[in-house]
Amino acid sequence: MSDAAPTSFPVALELPVQWGEMDSYRHVNNAVYFRWFESARMEYFLRIGWDEVERRTGVGPILHSTAARFRAPLEFPDQVRISAGVGEMGEDRFTMHYRVESARLGRLAAEGSGVVVAFDYRAGTKAALPAPVRAAIAALEGRG
Amino acid sequence: MSDAAPTSFPVALELPVQWGEMDSYRHVNNAVYFRWFESARMEYFLRIGWDEVERRTGVGPILHSTAARFRAPLEFPDQVRISAGVGEMGEDRFTMHYRVESARLGRLAAEGSGVVVAFDYRAGTKAALPAPVRAAIAALEGRG
Amino acid sequence: MSDAAPTSFPVALELPVQWGEMDSYRHVNNAVYFRWFESARMEYFLRIGWDEVERRTGVGPILHSTAARFRAPLEFPDQVRISAGVGEMGEDRFTMHYRVESARLGRLAAEGSGVVVAFDYRAGTKAALPAPVRAAIAALEGRG
Amino acid sequence: MSDAAPTSFPVALELPVQWGEMDSYRHVNNAVYFRWFESARMEYFLRIGWDEVERRTGVGPILHSTAARFRAPLEFPDQVRISAGVGEMGEDRFTMHYRVESARLGRLAAEGSGVVVAFDYRAGTKAALPAPVRAAIAALEGRG
Repeated sequence: MSDAAPTSFPVALELPVQWGEMDSYRHVNNAVYFRWFESARMEYFLRIGWDEVERRTGVGPILHSTAARFRAPLEFPDQVRISAGVGEMGEDRFTMHYRVESARLGRLAAEGSGVVVAFDYRAGTKAALPAPVRAAIAALEGRG
Repeated sequence: MSDAAPTSFPVALELPVQWGEMDSYRHVNNAVYFRWFESARMEYFLRIGWDEVERRTGVGPILHSTAARFRAPLEFPDQVRISAGVGEMGEDRFTMHYRVESARLGRLAAEGSGVVVAFDYRAGTKAALPAPVRAAIAALEGRG
Repeated sequence: MSDAAPTSFPVALELPVQWGEMDSYRHVNNAVYFRWFESARMEYFLRIGWDEVERRTGVGPILHSTAARFRAPLEFPDQVRISAGVGEMGEDRFTMHYRVESARLGRLAAEGSGVVVAFDYRAGTKAALPAPVRAAIAALEGRG
Repeated sequence: MSDAAPTSFPVALELPVQWGEMDSYRHVNNAVYFRWFESARMEYFLRIGWDEVERRTGVGPILHSTAARFRAPLEFPDQVRISAGVGEMGEDRFTMHYRVESARLGRLAAEGSGVVVAFDYRAGTKAALPAPVRAAIAALEGRG
């Protein structure tokens, strides 16, 4: 969570809380939030067509680091909305920010972020962010 | 899957396949189906009010055994519908049956079952199925 | 669990129970056992060299069905020993059996089984069990 | 990872990487590291007797935030050593730091941290760190 969170979160998905996602404290376990962040991230990548770019160029995303701040414990049954937006972009990376909102609580339950780095899976090295990925992010974030 | 599957599956929930539910073979991992079955089971228990009965009597469900038959591999992105119905009922147990249907494939992806036993969590022993639980199942299954 | 369990379980691994594997009932969640069965299965496949055979021929394992019978609830902290053995072998499949033993309880906590089918991942069709896989299983099971 | 990492990590556990912990990129999935961090954290809590203190006082730990920095991708088969140490302590909280080392790679695979807050589960409010918990941490960290 090293840079400012974006003001918009253009991609979101809704999921029911599953009973088995709770742990012995009868709250959703912390590791589950990272699964949810990942699901929002993958939805975002689909939206910007990175899967297509990766098939063509071999350059895909790799997760460099990630963090979560838990604001309110969650329980089954509930419905969560996980949204994602991109903040700062560098030559070979960007920061994605996440929000988890609870329908039951009517409030923000967690925030998170992750640094995503472009990686050339064929060469096995870091790579510059592919131009179409950069452009699609800018368009989706309304920063084109 | 020891007894005949029911003809109706009165409780269902829909979930998006999450990217992280796939394993190295790029298919949804087998353990995920048991999480899904559990989610349908817990939805079913909510519908018949077993949580209320358990709070009042201490008699709740415990999973005795479970099984799955995989019919078609699943991938992200997809949407699955998991449905549940109760088959045979005994004095202290019943068999719940599950179906997982894939929106992407337009077909049945897996079937499963589980034997649920009534357990007195206060006494630490098996118990008879509480009468309101038995009646609510019969009503929900249209076998009242 | 359609055929007789084998008398020997030649492959085993030991794992500590992780706190987060427990659910709201403060017992290890049922889906975790299938992760454990899978870990024993993969250890077994390594031991018979199926990964090597798959790289050479494209014929690997696919899980057709699986089942578990829970005998005693598990809690953190504990250490489990998961063991695996192959029962009946057919032209294109075999049944693997599993046992989960608890160090804390000093007893069997669960049993399971799974039917593994040979699959030609290049052709996208079922295949006969590769001869070296069949021979390595027979040798490991002392049925050579 | 807001404060300096400690120089010692007095609690550690070793785990085999499980095949099913890998995702579609054939690397251990990011959410698994948080399960591992939690396992080291719970081991640490057992070592300082917090479970005993919680049973007596109702004051237990709650996770406020957590982060991971991934340094090298992990694959099955491997053995990881996860170690934990406490850094800065405040009135009602402390930061725990984690390291994940890979036997296969012979190097650090990930680092992480989490802020743990004392929570009075009976009153439903934050609480001061129980004195015996504070003393046991200081002793274990050699800062007594």
